[in-house]
Amino acid sequence: METVDHIGIAVQSIKESLPFYVDMLTLTLLKVERVEEQGVKIAFIDAGNVKLELLEPLHDESPIATFIQKRGQGIHHVAFKVSGIEERIQELKEKGIRFISDEPRRGAGGADIAFLHPTQANGVLYELCDHRGKKGASSHE
Amino acid sequence: METVDHIGIAVQSIKESLPFYVDMLTLTLLKVERVEEQGVKIAFIDAGNVKLELLEPLHDESPIATFIQKRGQGIHHVAFKVSGIEERIQELKEKGIRFISDEPRRGAGGADIAFLHPTQANGVLYELCDHRGKKGASSHE
Repeated sequence: METVDHIGIAVQSIKESLPFYVDMLTLTLLKVERVEEQGVKIAFIDAGNVKLELLEPLHDESPIATFIQKRGQGIHHVAFKVSGIEERIQELKEKGIRFISDEPRRGAGGADIAFLHPTQANGVLYELCDHRGKKGASSHE
Repeated sequence: METVDHIGIAVQSIKESLPFYVDMLTLTLLKVERVEEQGVKIAFIDAGNVKLELLEPLHDESPIATFIQKRGQGIHHVAFKVSGIEERIQELKEKGIRFISDEPRRGAGGADIAFLHPTQANGVLYELCDHRGKKGASSHE
């Protein structure tokens, strides 16, 4: 595991949440992107050494909508930056780590991502995030 | 706001939680420290650009015990590294930010800390953390 790439925060409304981060904390909004296959709109905020990602559900079937219904708004996941995500998944599986899905999928910003099962981490949802995937993607950037 | 200093994670037991971070994710345990006035034992884990702090309640009256009873184990707070915490508190208050307590207090590692009220941040508990305070403290390091 290398460094923390971003912290994902489930919010009802990016528009209503942004002033706290941008006007109050004076952090910089980098971009806003829709990831249709995950049913989310994402605001990327620069917090210096990591990004904060505000995750707004696009519809009621979005996993973020389900999360907010169950637990309320708040921190949804923490993502570690890795390179060679397939090898890292394999390596962690051999140590007994379980993943929510066995194959990495395309996430925000064109990165390849995979979620570890939160039951083995005191309920914290950790993500592996490989930005190498962006090179081959129809990039949003 | 400068950078993210650490992510605080409420756990029932540091002993039971550490193998996931150290053996599985191969992160480095930096130290374990008791902060009696907050009723917590803290394991500091190096995640490269940020620290992960596992927070174990020392007794049932610990705020971490209350958090776990209400919400279960999981991410408790995100701390921003600042310098000149009194000035930053004042500056944020002038912008309308509310704090849980008006004065910074001594936190883990001898840092001066202050928590922003989570209602204004979609339920996320943010901390300001000023390591300058360590210089004058009876340091644990």
